[in-house]
Amino acid sequence: MERVHNFNAGPAALPLPVLEQARDEMLNYRGSGMSVMELSHRSAHFEGIIRQAEADLRSLLGIPDHYSVLFLQGGASLQFAMLARNFIPSEGSADYILTGAWAKAAVREAEKRGRVRVIGAADALERDNFNHVPSPAELDLDPKAGYLHFTSNETIHGVEWAADAEPEPPAGVPLICDASSNIASRPLHAAKYAMIYAGAQKNLGPAGVTLVVLRNDLLERVPSRLPVVLDYKAMAENKSLYNTPPCFSIYMVGLVLKWVKDIGGLEEVARRNATKATKVYKAIDDSGGFYRGHARPDSRSRMNVTFRLPSEDLEKKFARESDAQGLVGLKGHRSVGGLRASLYNALPMESVEVLVQFMGEFLRKNG
Amino acid sequence: MERVHNFNAGPAALPLPVLEQARDEMLNYRGSGMSVMELSHRSAHFEGIIRQAEADLRSLLGIPDHYSVLFLQGGASLQFAMLARNFIPSEGSADYILTGAWAKAAVREAEKRGRVRVIGAADALERDNFNHVPSPAELDLDPKAGYLHFTSNETIHGVEWAADAEPEPPAGVPLICDASSNIASRPLHAAKYAMIYAGAQKNLGPAGVTLVVLRNDLLERVPSRLPVVLDYKAMAENKSLYNTPPCFSIYMVGLVLKWVKDIGGLEEVARRNATKATKVYKAIDDSGGFYRGHARPDSRSRMNVTFRLPSEDLEKKFARESDAQGLVGLKGHRSVGGLRASLYNALPMESVEVLVQFMGEFLRKNG
Repeated sequence: MERVHNFNAGPAALPLPVLEQARDEMLNYRGSGMSVMELSHRSAHFEGIIRQAEADLRSLLGIPDHYSVLFLQGGASLQFAMLARNFIPSEGSADYILTGAWAKAAVREAEKRGRVRVIGAADALERDNFNHVPSPAELDLDPKAGYLHFTSNETIHGVEWAADAEPEPPAGVPLICDASSNIASRPLHAAKYAMIYAGAQKNLGPAGVTLVVLRNDLLERVPSRLPVVLDYKAMAENKSLYNTPPCFSIYMVGLVLKWVKDIGGLEEVARRNATKATKVYKAIDDSGGFYRGHARPDSRSRMNVTFRLPSEDLEKKFARESDAQGLVGLKGHRSVGGLRASLYNALPMESVEVLVQFMGEFLRKNG
Repeated sequence: MERVHNFNAGPAALPLPVLEQARDEMLNYRGSGMSVMELSHRSAHFEGIIRQAEADLRSLLGIPDHYSVLFLQGGASLQFAMLARNFIPSEGSADYILTGAWAKAAVREAEKRGRVRVIGAADALERDNFNHVPSPAELDLDPKAGYLHFTSNETIHGVEWAADAEPEPPAGVPLICDASSNIASRPLHAAKYAMIYAGAQKNLGPAGVTLVVLRNDLLERVPSRLPVVLDYKAMAENKSLYNTPPCFSIYMVGLVLKWVKDIGGLEEVARRNATKATKVYKAIDDSGGFYRGHARPDSRSRMNVTFRLPSEDLEKKFARESDAQGLVGLKGHRSVGGLRASLYNALPMESVEVLVQFMGEFLRKNG
């Protein structure tokens, strides 16, 4: 059987050339006589891998020198707890914008540590099952907040902040962004954020490594006596090598970043992603109401296209028949229902074209 | 260049058949049309991978049904913090046996959370640069301790508790073991422990996944409001799938466990490991004092053989010349100095024979 069209929400598709290179280097990484998994994390070979990945990330995302780049473990879920422990002031609170399931998880973990203000018409959004992001006018921002946290793309609900409409914090309030599901999908104005973090398993590589980009002045706020693995200062001082990092996952991230550079960088990635999303949303909008997008048009995610069909039976049929034709991962998350097509960087244009064709045929047969 | 003889202390050698299988399945895992790294962690394929790994681990280590098996992230360093947060009683303390650098790190992280009693003639051991484990008589065990923690093998110092001489806790005190560097190196009496944990990157697989085996009654002690990723109860209830696990690393652990079964299980592994260690210690003991083992003979590690030469210059020469001949990773850790040969499960007998031959030649030329 050949490779499928992979619409998984994460872990997700990886670029074929990346997988081929990982395969070819599996027994002997560049003359080392070892697999990457067998290299010491203190070796020159691995030092080369992690520093090149960092350098490529800095150049692709335009990360200034006064930011640290960390490769950590534990996924975004550990970051939810970790950033609250590092940065919610003991007197005071942090502001969280609630846009969906992932923002909610971030709030839940932060509330275990300190005071959290949920802002942005959260109740109304929840009534609409998180089908759009709040407007600036709805954000009752605290000018004294320890930080302002938001989720740049909600994987489950398929809702994304437009690049030019992301929330702006009051002067002096650090902006912290969970970019797990849209990092590196478009050019980034990194200096706008105090911290960005992302599980790798959507746009950057395999599961098991989490990227954290952090402005260095924030490290002065890190309290003492945190568990060392949850201490950004210790992780930054040790350049992600306090303990053994997830070496192979970092290597894979490095290969993915090199692939992004090879195909033309984030401008080209953004262009392709826009084209891919436009094609799928057009298939929805041109279906005469057969397909109904979950997200409001102004909040549509380029990464996760969520849509419903006229009945749950048809949705099940769509998922079953698409899967049988090699279109994998289209079943939606249970909290939204329906279908979801995740169109991350590594998903080829061809897969989108096959999906759109399938959507058209399914409509003709069942519409 | 062909593959080297890999004496790395961790990440370390992996079995060649395991790497070959990972290579061959890289683009298409068993007809899924995807790499393992591209599978959804909620898919039947990945469910098969993680449950088979768990089943093989249960059968190899003889883990009873009333234990949970968890695949976590963050390495042993996160476990140091996590187990203290889960299990040091708010009134009371935990006992830690200090046998070297790793036990010390466990103490350091636990002390951030609660009261720790360091037991077992730690000062005298430290004066001897941790060259042996304490005797039962030296252990001033607290019959009311929250738990008793020990490190079954000290990777840096090359000191290991013999299988029949591991510490025995007072009745009712849970025994917790950091087995990172000797897990699955010999048969295990799992029911003796309340909890065993191990970073995978020595005997089990690549870096990025940590194995935790935990008796289920301990879960009742887990306090509320822990970060969910640091909450054993949440991790056990979700069978390691609360959030996205390090899928590829778990797959690799599964392949390694299957390899262990294929070569004859832990009895055969233990036999090979004993033979390998005996050969290297014999080369030391037969060298007329040219090679001097760091560990006292009764505490010698089968996994990490630490030894000195007559001068630091000769040690550097040994490291340099062995490396040039394809014997990699023999330079000792700076806190012990000298040389260290790590002889984990995957290191082939042939590599040990090449090392012993090299040691003989080096002695003839420089002795």
